[in-house]
Amino acid sequence: MNLHDVETPFLAVDRHTVLTNVHRLRSRLDRLGTALRPHVKTAKSIDVAALLDDGTPGPITVSTLAEAEAFAAAGYRDILYAVGIAPHKVARVTALRERGVDLIVLLDSAEQAASLTAGIPALIEIDCDGHRGGLRPGDPALLTIARTLEDTGADLRGVLTHAGESYFADGDDELRAAADNERHSAVRAAETLRAAGHEAPVVSVGSTPTAHFATDLTGVTEVRAGNFVFFDLVMAGIGVCRIEDLAMSVVVTVIGHRHDKGWILTDGGWMSTSRDRGTSRQRVDQGYGLVTDLGGTLYPDLLMTDASQEHGILSIRPGSTAALPDLPVGARVRILPNHACATAAQHDRYHVIEPGSPTIRATWPRVRGW
Amino acid sequence: MNLHDVETPFLAVDRHTVLTNVHRLRSRLDRLGTALRPHVKTAKSIDVAALLDDGTPGPITVSTLAEAEAFAAAGYRDILYAVGIAPHKVARVTALRERGVDLIVLLDSAEQAASLTAGIPALIEIDCDGHRGGLRPGDPALLTIARTLEDTGADLRGVLTHAGESYFADGDDELRAAADNERHSAVRAAETLRAAGHEAPVVSVGSTPTAHFATDLTGVTEVRAGNFVFFDLVMAGIGVCRIEDLAMSVVVTVIGHRHDKGWILTDGGWMSTSRDRGTSRQRVDQGYGLVTDLGGTLYPDLLMTDASQEHGILSIRPGSTAALPDLPVGARVRILPNHACATAAQHDRYHVIEPGSPTIRATWPRVRGW
Repeated sequence: MNLHDVETPFLAVDRHTVLTNVHRLRSRLDRLGTALRPHVKTAKSIDVAALLDDGTPGPITVSTLAEAEAFAAAGYRDILYAVGIAPHKVARVTALRERGVDLIVLLDSAEQAASLTAGIPALIEIDCDGHRGGLRPGDPALLTIARTLEDTGADLRGVLTHAGESYFADGDDELRAAADNERHSAVRAAETLRAAGHEAPVVSVGSTPTAHFATDLTGVTEVRAGNFVFFDLVMAGIGVCRIEDLAMSVVVTVIGHRHDKGWILTDGGWMSTSRDRGTSRQRVDQGYGLVTDLGGTLYPDLLMTDASQEHGILSIRPGSTAALPDLPVGARVRILPNHACATAAQHDRYHVIEPGSPTIRATWPRVRGW
Repeated sequence: MNLHDVETPFLAVDRHTVLTNVHRLRSRLDRLGTALRPHVKTAKSIDVAALLDDGTPGPITVSTLAEAEAFAAAGYRDILYAVGIAPHKVARVTALRERGVDLIVLLDSAEQAASLTAGIPALIEIDCDGHRGGLRPGDPALLTIARTLEDTGADLRGVLTHAGESYFADGDDELRAAADNERHSAVRAAETLRAAGHEAPVVSVGSTPTAHFATDLTGVTEVRAGNFVFFDLVMAGIGVCRIEDLAMSVVVTVIGHRHDKGWILTDGGWMSTSRDRGTSRQRVDQGYGLVTDLGGTLYPDLLMTDASQEHGILSIRPGSTAALPDLPVGARVRILPNHACATAAQHDRYHVIEPGSPTIRATWPRVRGW
């Protein structure tokens, strides 16, 4: 089985590039003296996670209880569920904990704290940049929640924050500032808890951009990042990676041409790429993605410019004088995605390749659902 | 099992509303004297399709060979695969035909025609509005393709067109004009083929907007439409349906609040709604969707305004003076989607309800992949 004969559209993942991306971040965090708790929400794959930790299950972050259950079944025992807990989900958390999994939940309200049962460990979510949930670091509710957790017998492990706005940072200085602010917000909140007599041993921060730009992680006990295993055009657009670091692409087949419009039509529509157009808010809009040949070489200024459910349209970037490549019906190309998390979610498995070879080495399933 | 206890996020489908939507379109087409060949790409569900045809498998349209194979296994024998055929897919087409399925393919080039084997029926795709692929109705390549099909022994069944630009129509007059143009383009191309001695018995047109606005279908032998089973906010925005005709929604749970920002946070992010923001190009931008209570009553001017992977943000429409409803942690609401095809694709099953009751009557699986 190789890139030329698997049914299209399908996801190709370059295992070597994943390993390089993992090595880069691990080395950075080793130098900064902080642990990595990878977020498995991007790849949702036991096999990709095995590349992160040499096959020995380490600490992970999940975005759904379905991921927690799948990774627990694969031997993972230290799992942080990093979406604010809904009270009805506590029963599934308890069931996993009874199977020996140290599953940690997240919350930012006394209502949630009151819904926990004794022994469940929790982090309090801190809002460092106004991105979505969490308490501002100085919010007096921090201590109210800590007391509610004490009352229920739950286990206050510490604090967590995520610099979600770093995805919109412009340049290295803003990225470093976002990382500093992320660290400072979390450490300040932990110190507030400790000053009031709570242990709060965990200070968890992270996003792929800040993880790659932090220069000081004093006081931080773990960094979460997920997207970095594959990277994508949004990450390249903000300068966190290069285009050649993108490990995942969608392989599609040419099914037609509109010579009058300068279009090449493919069998890869939004069902295979997702509707995510994250680069439309960046300095360079990459459409639905950049286009490479099966070997990974970019076609100059060729973009996937539009998508129906099962049709993609490739055309030359507006304003460019590049020529449309000659791609006959049946030719295959690869689309580099805007947002790896969203594109991967459209597929049930990865087709694993190594550089310089079209051979599919393995197919790796993804976890789905909630 | 009911709407209050299924794990969130999940898809709810109101069976009664689907039946009403189906009855409306069937009645229209009966009056116009044309057959319906429903497109199953929206629901991708054998069970939803059974509501279209009283359980007797009729003619259908599919967007993938995976759908063709699943529906063939369920007894469907008249299947149109309405995405331009890639040569490598012909083997799967042949395998289905050998199992007694009249599977019809689509093409718009002599290269594709030459890739077919004897006996495979094909429609030639006509471009009526510049939306994506197809030949313009007067293109001389029409006859070249017809001759190539004769040479290969394939079976030229006729022509197909899809008024894809009708999704961007503004008002009833433009919708009627799009329907007229769709019919006229297809009939003209069929007449060109017939004048040259080809039978071309099939004249297939369709899109959900034009199917609901056509006033004359003379010369058309079948109408394709898919979205109408569920409808969505894009269809409501162009006036094809009312908000109360939307049959599908995403049920989510409140997990937090940002009182300072006027936000309600839920456990339904883009993973459950998709990234499709079709209404952003319409007169009224509905964000990621309108919000109702579990009974289906709209909260005034409450929108899902932003989405992370597993977080949704609900807030009041900009400029509105409506009050944010009091929805405590644990409360459940329903999100009406921009684009039913894209939202449904994020899920593996439907939870089927009837009006006025929270009881889940059934769960219906979806077909996935290619």
